[in-house]
Amino acid sequence: MTAPRYDLLCIGNAIVDVIADTDDAFLAEQSLDKGSMRLIDEAEAVRLYDLIGPAREVSGGSAGNTAAGAAALGIRTAFVGQVATDQLGTIYRHDIEAQGVAFPVAARGDVGATARCLVLVTPDAQRTMNTFLGAAQQLDAKDIDLAAIADSAIVYLEGYLWDPPGPRAAMEAAIDAARAAGRKVAFTLSDSFCIARHRDDFLRLIDQGRIDILFANEAEICELSGQSDFDAAVADTAAKVVTLVVTRSEQGAVAVRGGQKASVAAEPIERLVDTTGAGDLFAAGFLAGEAKGLSLDLSLRLGAIAAAEVIQHYGARPEADLRTLAGALL
Amino acid sequence: MTAPRYDLLCIGNAIVDVIADTDDAFLAEQSLDKGSMRLIDEAEAVRLYDLIGPAREVSGGSAGNTAAGAAALGIRTAFVGQVATDQLGTIYRHDIEAQGVAFPVAARGDVGATARCLVLVTPDAQRTMNTFLGAAQQLDAKDIDLAAIADSAIVYLEGYLWDPPGPRAAMEAAIDAARAAGRKVAFTLSDSFCIARHRDDFLRLIDQGRIDILFANEAEICELSGQSDFDAAVADTAAKVVTLVVTRSEQGAVAVRGGQKASVAAEPIERLVDTTGAGDLFAAGFLAGEAKGLSLDLSLRLGAIAAAEVIQHYGARPEADLRTLAGALL
Repeated sequence: MTAPRYDLLCIGNAIVDVIADTDDAFLAEQSLDKGSMRLIDEAEAVRLYDLIGPAREVSGGSAGNTAAGAAALGIRTAFVGQVATDQLGTIYRHDIEAQGVAFPVAARGDVGATARCLVLVTPDAQRTMNTFLGAAQQLDAKDIDLAAIADSAIVYLEGYLWDPPGPRAAMEAAIDAARAAGRKVAFTLSDSFCIARHRDDFLRLIDQGRIDILFANEAEICELSGQSDFDAAVADTAAKVVTLVVTRSEQGAVAVRGGQKASVAAEPIERLVDTTGAGDLFAAGFLAGEAKGLSLDLSLRLGAIAAAEVIQHYGARPEADLRTLAGALL
Repeated sequence: MTAPRYDLLCIGNAIVDVIADTDDAFLAEQSLDKGSMRLIDEAEAVRLYDLIGPAREVSGGSAGNTAAGAAALGIRTAFVGQVATDQLGTIYRHDIEAQGVAFPVAARGDVGATARCLVLVTPDAQRTMNTFLGAAQQLDAKDIDLAAIADSAIVYLEGYLWDPPGPRAAMEAAIDAARAAGRKVAFTLSDSFCIARHRDDFLRLIDQGRIDILFANEAEICELSGQSDFDAAVADTAAKVVTLVVTRSEQGAVAVRGGQKASVAAEPIERLVDTTGAGDLFAAGFLAGEAKGLSLDLSLRLGAIAAAEVIQHYGARPEADLRTLAGALL
């Protein structure tokens, strides 16, 4: 097996974030569950956009954020996701390529508009996401370059991709191609509601041994395992994957591999602005550590450092120089 | 004369800012004058965009920023500028209307793309702007609702509008309509290079007594008057307008009216992030004070408070609640 072309190839929904400040009263009025992600159609996207305040547009999407973070840490990274031939699609491509991520997918004119996520940030820095998938849901198995996947040390997938049928089939094909080439498959559970929608599929992937590295947060690991006790939920799932990584917000994160458990404290921050992308950047740091062959402890540290950077500003991609922040770890 | 419908009507280039971090080496390599604004065509906009890092898109445009700031201070405000029927045009309209500004101009499909400004921010928080005017330069005298202008206590214009011929003619018509209705005309000189391009026109407007409130910064007032001495430049121009307001960055600002001079110190800030919009928001605060009938001193204070807010984050429109920051002043 020759050295792979990419350290990391991420597949996900290519989404531009539309970030606006809001308050708890507005979330209540609109019956939105704080901290969750819900899927909306174009009409609802237009309706809600008309109601929110002035916004900032920044490229996002869970796996896209992870790709941007990994590239910022110096990892050779590619991203696969579908955008349309519109201005938001141009913005999406610019941002991810400018971050140093290869983006070998052509924009299409027959897939509706580029996806966008209305991210409503409350004063407590929590984000409530409303996603119109648009072009992103038109990613098709035939758009996946299986040779590129076989040539990537780690393939990383977001649970959100299970929502639309096209990307779901593309993911299954990608997992098979990666495993056939002896590569690692990493997967994030994405969101509790997403797990509720796709628990059977996610458990099937795990039980079949097709996931090497599984990412979750506390709510997600409990939701997946059906256990309300955190330690029991972790033990339950850790037995089924090679590596389990669970983020715990201000309590840091834990990882379990081969019966060994490691943990990291949350990195100190100056001010909490917007938690969007915290999990995505934790994954970026951890996977960068994996790609570099670091220990579980050091990979967790890299995850904590990358997550701490992204929650101190609006937007889900790094703005400060992550390699400088990582210092001697890389 | 009945009470006007708007306290302030701003006319300007409707521009979406594309903000990216850069360094001095890149500016040197591209022969860009730090701190200045230059006009570029679509090809150069595409070329430069390909070279810059990941960006944030936020609605901007000098007079649009002033309108957003004034509305945030509770002033009844309208904005007139031209956008296209594209995604950036939709974003522009959303943001200014969501800020509470009336935007009575229809998007057009026959004017090219919505204008954008590539704002390159160096580590010293200075911004270097590269503007593709696109649809904004198609604003035409016939798009100006003269009845709305006659129904606005203050009409505010940006010097940048003198660059394209259509908006230039629209401005002349707007000034005449405002003066005929007994309204005040406010004008910002915008940029030293802009003055160099249009000094004769700007001096003509001033000498004809068609400008009531003139905004400038130090470099601009010196450029306009051809005086290198700041005090001499101020004295020279103050004699020709009812009110002259000159901002001086970290040294605060001065205003002269009817031989009376007032000054304000810069408002203390926690951290300087991006100076884009500092002058625009100073004008917003000052004009809000004027609209409320405040003293020259208090209007300057409002300007300093609004400018201080906007330089502490990326983007040229307020994010914090300006009315709270203004407190008892309003």
